[in-house]
Amino acid sequence: MTRFKPTTTATETVRRDGIVRSGTRIVPEEVPIAFSYGGSSHAVMMGTPADINDFAVGFSLTEGIITHIDQIAAVEPIEDEQGIDVQITLVEDAADALRTRRRHMAGPVGCGLCGIESIEQAVRKVPDVSTVGLTVSHGDIVKAVALLSDGQLLNRETRAVHGAGFYIPGEGLIAVREDVGRHNALDKLCGAVIRSGHKRAQGVVAVTSRLSVEMVQKAAILGSPVLIAISAPTALAIRTAEEAGMTLVALVRGDDFEIFTHPQRITPGSIADVA
Amino acid sequence: MTRFKPTTTATETVRRDGIVRSGTRIVPEEVPIAFSYGGSSHAVMMGTPADINDFAVGFSLTEGIITHIDQIAAVEPIEDEQGIDVQITLVEDAADALRTRRRHMAGPVGCGLCGIESIEQAVRKVPDVSTVGLTVSHGDIVKAVALLSDGQLLNRETRAVHGAGFYIPGEGLIAVREDVGRHNALDKLCGAVIRSGHKRAQGVVAVTSRLSVEMVQKAAILGSPVLIAISAPTALAIRTAEEAGMTLVALVRGDDFEIFTHPQRITPGSIADVA
Repeated sequence: MTRFKPTTTATETVRRDGIVRSGTRIVPEEVPIAFSYGGSSHAVMMGTPADINDFAVGFSLTEGIITHIDQIAAVEPIEDEQGIDVQITLVEDAADALRTRRRHMAGPVGCGLCGIESIEQAVRKVPDVSTVGLTVSHGDIVKAVALLSDGQLLNRETRAVHGAGFYIPGEGLIAVREDVGRHNALDKLCGAVIRSGHKRAQGVVAVTSRLSVEMVQKAAILGSPVLIAISAPTALAIRTAEEAGMTLVALVRGDDFEIFTHPQRITPGSIADVA
Repeated sequence: MTRFKPTTTATETVRRDGIVRSGTRIVPEEVPIAFSYGGSSHAVMMGTPADINDFAVGFSLTEGIITHIDQIAAVEPIEDEQGIDVQITLVEDAADALRTRRRHMAGPVGCGLCGIESIEQAVRKVPDVSTVGLTVSHGDIVKAVALLSDGQLLNRETRAVHGAGFYIPGEGLIAVREDVGRHNALDKLCGAVIRSGHKRAQGVVAVTSRLSVEMVQKAAILGSPVLIAISAPTALAIRTAEEAGMTLVALVRGDDFEIFTHPQRITPGSIADVA
């Protein structure tokens, strides 16, 4: 990880209070990151060149290529001038499963599928987390978001990257990951959580971004039954969380928030006690 | 366009000022939208079910499937319970070109390409707009963003969708399109501009979102030499705009803004004269 840095300094012309001057600003880097399994490329994301190993593990998990960290034998990021090619080696059973899946898989790009079939692939079934018994207090919600905000070091520099955090009631914020892309930030977090060996079902996923359906899918695959966001959810994210038994909390602003699904996991508690 | 509406009302539990009550909130819908050419699916996006014809035309343009509106013979959105399958019929030469491209095309999904090749596809060459002679005053920048904000009707309801607008100095804001996805909002705008017959090089593209490299690619393919954003650019977006000869203006807040590339197109002018 030497060629690419997560941020860089850009020169610019600034107009402020009616005065025009030259200046500089720290901006987030954005790099193509390819994931290759067994030497063959699977996907390319535009992302922040940081926490690549977490990203590789988390992407493999949320894409359903692995279900457990032990299924990855090695992760080797190879940099060239244009981007990072992450070579992932799976253990034999996972590699076999991916080869079988690839033979049957039809990607959305010019694959001969009809549109209806492609749509069915896009709205894949989300794991059910309804039996996960985690409860979270009002204070935990406020604290998780406050700690996430504090932990976003790249965002403090740039004010332009998304963050995702994993918070365990009684323990605090276990991990924070950041990326210019919100999906990438959450994939990196998922990788960090399973690499660290934390029990996924015991924690809350908190994100700075809006809650689209893919954020619900990823949190459910991680196994977390509570997803908290600073911004708003989409209608499809709400319906998907409702069906999956996931508690969605959104629009967390200071001590205020809104609960869209399965509010039974949220206990009043005292904000002062936790914060 | 009857089954899906761009927004819906969600019920929720609201905590505000320490008081918990039940409430409702208008949230944006999110629907899988597949684009099929000649009956075969090309891509599926999660998007806002509105302005589907603009989206189909704009996506076809920014993906390089067409270069001119006349190459599309018909657009027919077909809804089913899960999403919208948009059947696009190309005129014969464009359909031939797409068939040829598909035979040579290797998508990023399990295609047998190596990671480096996939990365090279991801950082495709952007059209050069350096010779486009448009100039834009400080007042135009401020006005374009103010008019975009005023024109975002879905965002006024939901505070959760992105907007993209096309502004022509001296004429004002020609079109605004919105979507839960920022790429989709810009594709819809590109479609609206070329369907309306406006000269693409005479206007500015303004977006509410951050400027990642793909936003620069899409604006350059539309032919606009000036891209304005409310939020910040990535380093790769800046480098790509620099090479393509595009003027990037970002972080527009009231009368303040920052110019990252090719400032020669921006003339001081008076904000009061335009606003």
